[in-house]
Amino acid sequence: MKSPKLSLALAGLGIVGKKHATNILKQSRVIDFVACFAPTPAEFQWAVANLTSHGVFIYSQYEEMVAHPGLDAVLISTAAVVHEVEVVQALDQNLHVLCEKPLSTNLEAAAREKPNLKVMCGFSRRFDESYRHAKQITTTGLIGDPSFIRCQSCDRYDAGGFLVQYSELSGGIFIDLGIHDIDLTLWFLGEDLVLKSVTATGAATLHPQLLSTNDRDNAMGLVEFHGGKVAQYYVSRIMAHGQEDSADIIGTEGKVTVNSQPARNLVNLYHAGGVTREVPQDFWARYEHSFSEELREFADCCLLDTTLPMNLAVAVKSVEIAAALQESLITGRQIRFNEQGQRLLMATL
Amino acid sequence: MKSPKLSLALAGLGIVGKKHATNILKQSRVIDFVACFAPTPAEFQWAVANLTSHGVFIYSQYEEMVAHPGLDAVLISTAAVVHEVEVVQALDQNLHVLCEKPLSTNLEAAAREKPNLKVMCGFSRRFDESYRHAKQITTTGLIGDPSFIRCQSCDRYDAGGFLVQYSELSGGIFIDLGIHDIDLTLWFLGEDLVLKSVTATGAATLHPQLLSTNDRDNAMGLVEFHGGKVAQYYVSRIMAHGQEDSADIIGTEGKVTVNSQPARNLVNLYHAGGVTREVPQDFWARYEHSFSEELREFADCCLLDTTLPMNLAVAVKSVEIAAALQESLITGRQIRFNEQGQRLLMATL
Amino acid sequence: MKSPKLSLALAGLGIVGKKHATNILKQSRVIDFVACFAPTPAEFQWAVANLTSHGVFIYSQYEEMVAHPGLDAVLISTAAVVHEVEVVQALDQNLHVLCEKPLSTNLEAAAREKPNLKVMCGFSRRFDESYRHAKQITTTGLIGDPSFIRCQSCDRYDAGGFLVQYSELSGGIFIDLGIHDIDLTLWFLGEDLVLKSVTATGAATLHPQLLSTNDRDNAMGLVEFHGGKVAQYYVSRIMAHGQEDSADIIGTEGKVTVNSQPARNLVNLYHAGGVTREVPQDFWARYEHSFSEELREFADCCLLDTTLPMNLAVAVKSVEIAAALQESLITGRQIRFNEQGQRLLMATL
Amino acid sequence: MKSPKLSLALAGLGIVGKKHATNILKQSRVIDFVACFAPTPAEFQWAVANLTSHGVFIYSQYEEMVAHPGLDAVLISTAAVVHEVEVVQALDQNLHVLCEKPLSTNLEAAAREKPNLKVMCGFSRRFDESYRHAKQITTTGLIGDPSFIRCQSCDRYDAGGFLVQYSELSGGIFIDLGIHDIDLTLWFLGEDLVLKSVTATGAATLHPQLLSTNDRDNAMGLVEFHGGKVAQYYVSRIMAHGQEDSADIIGTEGKVTVNSQPARNLVNLYHAGGVTREVPQDFWARYEHSFSEELREFADCCLLDTTLPMNLAVAVKSVEIAAALQESLITGRQIRFNEQGQRLLMATL
Repeated sequence: MKSPKLSLALAGLGIVGKKHATNILKQSRVIDFVACFAPTPAEFQWAVANLTSHGVFIYSQYEEMVAHPGLDAVLISTAAVVHEVEVVQALDQNLHVLCEKPLSTNLEAAAREKPNLKVMCGFSRRFDESYRHAKQITTTGLIGDPSFIRCQSCDRYDAGGFLVQYSELSGGIFIDLGIHDIDLTLWFLGEDLVLKSVTATGAATLHPQLLSTNDRDNAMGLVEFHGGKVAQYYVSRIMAHGQEDSADIIGTEGKVTVNSQPARNLVNLYHAGGVTREVPQDFWARYEHSFSEELREFADCCLLDTTLPMNLAVAVKSVEIAAALQESLITGRQIRFNEQGQRLLMATL
Repeated sequence: MKSPKLSLALAGLGIVGKKHATNILKQSRVIDFVACFAPTPAEFQWAVANLTSHGVFIYSQYEEMVAHPGLDAVLISTAAVVHEVEVVQALDQNLHVLCEKPLSTNLEAAAREKPNLKVMCGFSRRFDESYRHAKQITTTGLIGDPSFIRCQSCDRYDAGGFLVQYSELSGGIFIDLGIHDIDLTLWFLGEDLVLKSVTATGAATLHPQLLSTNDRDNAMGLVEFHGGKVAQYYVSRIMAHGQEDSADIIGTEGKVTVNSQPARNLVNLYHAGGVTREVPQDFWARYEHSFSEELREFADCCLLDTTLPMNLAVAVKSVEIAAALQESLITGRQIRFNEQGQRLLMATL
Repeated sequence: MKSPKLSLALAGLGIVGKKHATNILKQSRVIDFVACFAPTPAEFQWAVANLTSHGVFIYSQYEEMVAHPGLDAVLISTAAVVHEVEVVQALDQNLHVLCEKPLSTNLEAAAREKPNLKVMCGFSRRFDESYRHAKQITTTGLIGDPSFIRCQSCDRYDAGGFLVQYSELSGGIFIDLGIHDIDLTLWFLGEDLVLKSVTATGAATLHPQLLSTNDRDNAMGLVEFHGGKVAQYYVSRIMAHGQEDSADIIGTEGKVTVNSQPARNLVNLYHAGGVTREVPQDFWARYEHSFSEELREFADCCLLDTTLPMNLAVAVKSVEIAAALQESLITGRQIRFNEQGQRLLMATL
Repeated sequence: MKSPKLSLALAGLGIVGKKHATNILKQSRVIDFVACFAPTPAEFQWAVANLTSHGVFIYSQYEEMVAHPGLDAVLISTAAVVHEVEVVQALDQNLHVLCEKPLSTNLEAAAREKPNLKVMCGFSRRFDESYRHAKQITTTGLIGDPSFIRCQSCDRYDAGGFLVQYSELSGGIFIDLGIHDIDLTLWFLGEDLVLKSVTATGAATLHPQLLSTNDRDNAMGLVEFHGGKVAQYYVSRIMAHGQEDSADIIGTEGKVTVNSQPARNLVNLYHAGGVTREVPQDFWARYEHSFSEELREFADCCLLDTTLPMNLAVAVKSVEIAAALQESLITGRQIRFNEQGQRLLMATL
């Protein structure tokens, strides 16, 4: 007897979506890849060329895809601005949902109405073996009480200008990149923390056009929680050397770091100029296995009806903090909150 | 239309065999895992518990397994001493063969009689992304002429005594571990090199019982080729910290190293005693993806009838050098060869 | 003919002062160590035991020491609160001055009145070979325009409580530790930068008594300059593993880091728990050679009447920024400045 | 009262000698640099320009220098071939001797006749903080019984050809470079070890002229001791990236390494090609502090009549092993010894 499989559809075939498509096909032992939604002609063409032969039905309308007969779940990898409506439509069709970040606040309520459905936000670092090892070290108490975190999420400079076009749909650098660091903060320092203040600043160093969409290509943020825990972020899209995410989690008795020495693999070249190692060039080179693990665990939770490895409320809280950081980045002003988490108003005299 | 798949059987379900079984199941898009050979009752039981549900037919006789109807290929992962006879039987049944190292000299002749069949020896490092990157750097000429190599293949100390029992079947530490380093040597310094001298020495440091099977748990070897290229090996089974393979390939204009800083993942723990990172504990933690890639490429070559990524003659040459090193290790004497590769006799006066 | 020497006196024999004393003795080729000022009985006793035999005259009054006949220069290593008055008294005696950070604003005016005297603030990192190498890389243009900096200055946790006593005299964690990072910021990003905003937050994690002196043992700061350059700081006194300063300088075309992998020396221990290296335990283990170089270059500038390697105005600017960070740390509020550098008033509505 | 100083003369002002001269001047608190021996006109000129002003008397005859009135000790840094006669002449003048490696066997006897004199061979690594830390770890038992050692002593490629001229005077690559690794072997594995076999091979890869002086620019050696301890060496003069010495000391319960990640300092440059660090370019960049410490400790031992930190017999034993390796390198043959350390004769049949 073979195990039952999860009948899955994929929405969105952009850079990340194409990677998901490949990953889903590799998980054919537990997942039946039955349908996809290709919003643009280019994505449709790619799907015809790459997915049809695997029996995947291609839709140009999201609503039609979620009504595909026998569908169990949908993986949403479209632009951030349509996540909310697409998740709601999927829930209406009684589908489990794995949605790329970010998620909006309203979704939590919508998901609560269908407690039998699994709704998970794709925070891939939660499925990365290194972050998980760091989490395990932290949970074991080896660094005492985790109190401070310093993270960076830095992308390689893309001369092609894709970033600028994409900026309007992404919600901004803290929503798009920084949200991973915020999620790490809640994961490592505490999911119940109450925000005290948020301050951010940055610059449109190599992409001045971003100013017109209220975005930046470099930003630094400082987030303080009531009780004294603090997080510090650096997000960038102008790295010459490649993709580099890292995190230092500092506790009262020690520190654990992830990726303090970025490396593509185990190779070093010794030459007249010194010793050189390469660095991953994009998120996929760094997180391919995390994406794969995320998908596998999501499928298992749906098939076995077990608890998801992460909480939807936390994903929503991350979006809220990211939005506050993005606002502070644009206004240049600190935003403060009282102990009930209510925003305090400030003014220049 | 779905692509055709390779119908594969697996022989041997020991430590490595079990890993292969898992890997084969993951490659279900290109491989049909149809049969396995479980030589021992324990292996048979494991197969019943883990493979039956995936439709794998279990045999307790190798001859019967290779006669399984519709079989295309066999992956041999049994004890080294039976590799030769099992490869020959598989070839007699017109099966492609992927055989764990080591291979014997006779096999090359046997394989040459069936030029339509693919016969490959499982040197997993040839499929590891880091060694491949190093090879690409070398091929590009970035280190000039690759002239010297220093390798180590070191396993974690196993208090359980498995090693001692296994020693009689493995052929000795140079045949079992060192052969990977020898293969790297030929791959990086040249597959046509002619052996000039071989010297080895070592000790049964933590496993004195190995002396009775003419084996050691630590050994160092020095291999010289006509023309001046030299290789230096260290193989060990007593590492406290884990599994650690590394290679330095030294050329006339630079050096490339693989794994000079072993690490389990990207985590570092900072504590009162300093900064600590973990190390892979066994070959699987280090080479899981290489094994997977090896299997995938072998399947592709069989299905598409393309050239295998490595040459059987080189695999056989590796065994010859390993055997000479093992002999030198036991006798304590250097072994020398003339420019035709013929062995020179030496004596103590 | 032997070269002339600088006749030097040392004020203060605390932890840092004792190290300076040792360093001065080692520079006997260019410096005559003629006098010292020992403010406390314990320091006086130490001087008797360690300096008398080298011909150093010991004073218990600073005013008397600066009047020591034939004195050329004084190195001030007393508590931060008395730096200002002591520098002024030294200038009144026509002495060159090397003063430990921090320096106050008034000093710049006082020093300007004696243009023939050398007045330098001891920012030891400016004399460290690694920071200098990073500076040279930056100046050469290898990272493009240096735009962002992320620094940390973290001390080992001191269970002895010295920190708490010292806090009242030090001016606070940003004045005492963070000032080095601020100096790096000005050195690498530009000494003419105009401050736009300063935000800090932190906690008294392991030393709650620090709250009573308006200090903290961990703090994070965010400093923004008009024009878009930004700095991010982390200062701490609770590190379990030792002393760890580091800096990432990020430019438009690359990044240079200093000390991303702290290590006491070149040793790694491989053991059952992994691979461990030690870390410097205090500032001296990390900066001994910088202190020595600083002293040597200061002496050379005095003897040869050459330009000092760093500008007093920058040292003063660092103190101003540090004071703003310390204020923000205590009030929890962002402080903002207009393009003329004038402070803007803010209020909670 | 000032402490007495050691009145020291320096013989030889080549590359290493000039460095010693600088070091001696820096130790002016304990050493009076009174005389030097400049064998060549160029060295004489350098001494006039650099040492006369410090009161150093310059000799063109070694015999005259060792008769300098009031002299206590001599530091010999001339060519290896004259070490023996110069040490004997110094002992005849009742001088303490610090002599650069290598030392010859006869010296041990000569030194034994003057037990009141200090005679030390300059193995600088014994004074390096990292090797000392590794030694302390080993002595503490943290790696169990130190049983195997893998070392390399690799110099940067020198296009200038100095190496070739120098080769005739140096005694060959194992005498000149490898001797440091041999000394480490005896220091870490045991000074009483009895040699069992020696095997070496190599090539004159970039300096084919070295063949005419029975030398090579790359060599690998394998040294076995009775009882099962083994050492493996790699020495080279063709490194593109700089100077790189390293050692792995492997024990029954762990491993300690020195310099597995060579670095000039704490700087890393992140650029479009990856992450690059520089490497020390020569022995001085790596060992300046070791040389300084060696000189200081030698002076202290002479002044206080305390035991030297290393044994002359061990230095002599290192030369014997180095000579055997050099012979094996040239003949291509293994050399074997019985348990009394007597050489066994071998022949090709």
